[in-house]
Amino acid sequence: MVSSTNVTVVGAGSMGAAIAARLVQGGASVQVLARDAGKAAALPGVVPGAIGDPITGGIVVLALPYAAVGEVVARYADQLDGAVLVDLTNPVDFATFDSLVVPAGSSAAAEIAALAPGAAVLKAFNTTFAATLASGTVGAEPTTVLVAGDDADAKAAFTTAVEAGGLRVVDAGSLKRAHELEALGFLQMTLAAAGATSWSAGFALAR
Amino acid sequence: MVSSTNVTVVGAGSMGAAIAARLVQGGASVQVLARDAGKAAALPGVVPGAIGDPITGGIVVLALPYAAVGEVVARYADQLDGAVLVDLTNPVDFATFDSLVVPAGSSAAAEIAALAPGAAVLKAFNTTFAATLASGTVGAEPTTVLVAGDDADAKAAFTTAVEAGGLRVVDAGSLKRAHELEALGFLQMTLAAAGATSWSAGFALAR
Repeated sequence: MVSSTNVTVVGAGSMGAAIAARLVQGGASVQVLARDAGKAAALPGVVPGAIGDPITGGIVVLALPYAAVGEVVARYADQLDGAVLVDLTNPVDFATFDSLVVPAGSSAAAEIAALAPGAAVLKAFNTTFAATLASGTVGAEPTTVLVAGDDADAKAAFTTAVEAGGLRVVDAGSLKRAHELEALGFLQMTLAAAGATSWSAGFALAR
Repeated sequence: MVSSTNVTVVGAGSMGAAIAARLVQGGASVQVLARDAGKAAALPGVVPGAIGDPITGGIVVLALPYAAVGEVVARYADQLDGAVLVDLTNPVDFATFDSLVVPAGSSAAAEIAALAPGAAVLKAFNTTFAATLASGTVGAEPTTVLVAGDDADAKAAFTTAVEAGGLRVVDAGSLKRAHELEALGFLQMTLAAAGATSWSAGFALAR
């Protein structure tokens, strides 16, 4: 059984900060590792550190841009065996904003799973803008964290930790669905950039 | 300029019926062609016919399963030059419900555009369940028809016709975005099948 009460968030940007705040709210012990440890230390209720410090959480949320993930996973390779590794990236080609940088049909999550074969990789948080993690709503609906992955225990531990923080979690299926989640995340970004939705809204999953 | 007041809907299933009803509500002249002309004749306010009859609309909505589209496009090849051709399919592999039948990175819309090179192909309606076209709402949000395509005039005519019927239309970009729309449509179907949303709800685009 993976503990849902010890979580490491790597990255202290808007996503990392919003996720850490929810996990702290849920009563988890939350380590935040940032390139600039001072950014982690500024977050309330967390155990701050620098990228490179030992990971203490059994659930590790990579709150980093896709381009930064490979280096971090390589650095922590020996510490990720047996961990739940959560990928939230949208691997958008920012030069064109017209495609993803991962191979057609694949996903960032699948690429990361190949880099960390001993970890149980989950895709989550890539369809929720940071502001909606903080507000808890997307329009009139509750913010819904869609999670995909192949390991049921990993998914259960993740779900427990995130629901404890007051967010709704919905199982989106196997890790193969990361492709669709990344398509949704990318589409949502293009719609926000075009003004068809806002960076504090996006797609809500209605019942 | 494409007229937005003459539309042909091919197919009289739940999607075809719901779309025809909205277009009739918007004041368009709506021809509905069905394999069984009796099904078309049962729809209020439309000009019914059988698949094979001449197409009268400048906008042609293919309200058919993906597997049935190829034959219909081939049959009408000479009548689709210059038409706005709307594809609403989700090309799901129903044997596995775990992937799409189109090549990785491509889309049903791109495949259809290759079959009908003289038509201006739009992707639309594949992210809105039929019930939400009728109700006009997804949860607390207005039903939003996401449309992708490369021809601005075609998109404008489509948007005018659908907005006249009381639905919100949002431009989702070029036809390349059909890949993401089909991923969203497929994901939404898997979530409805799993009970995480209902077939009368799904993803709402909040502001």
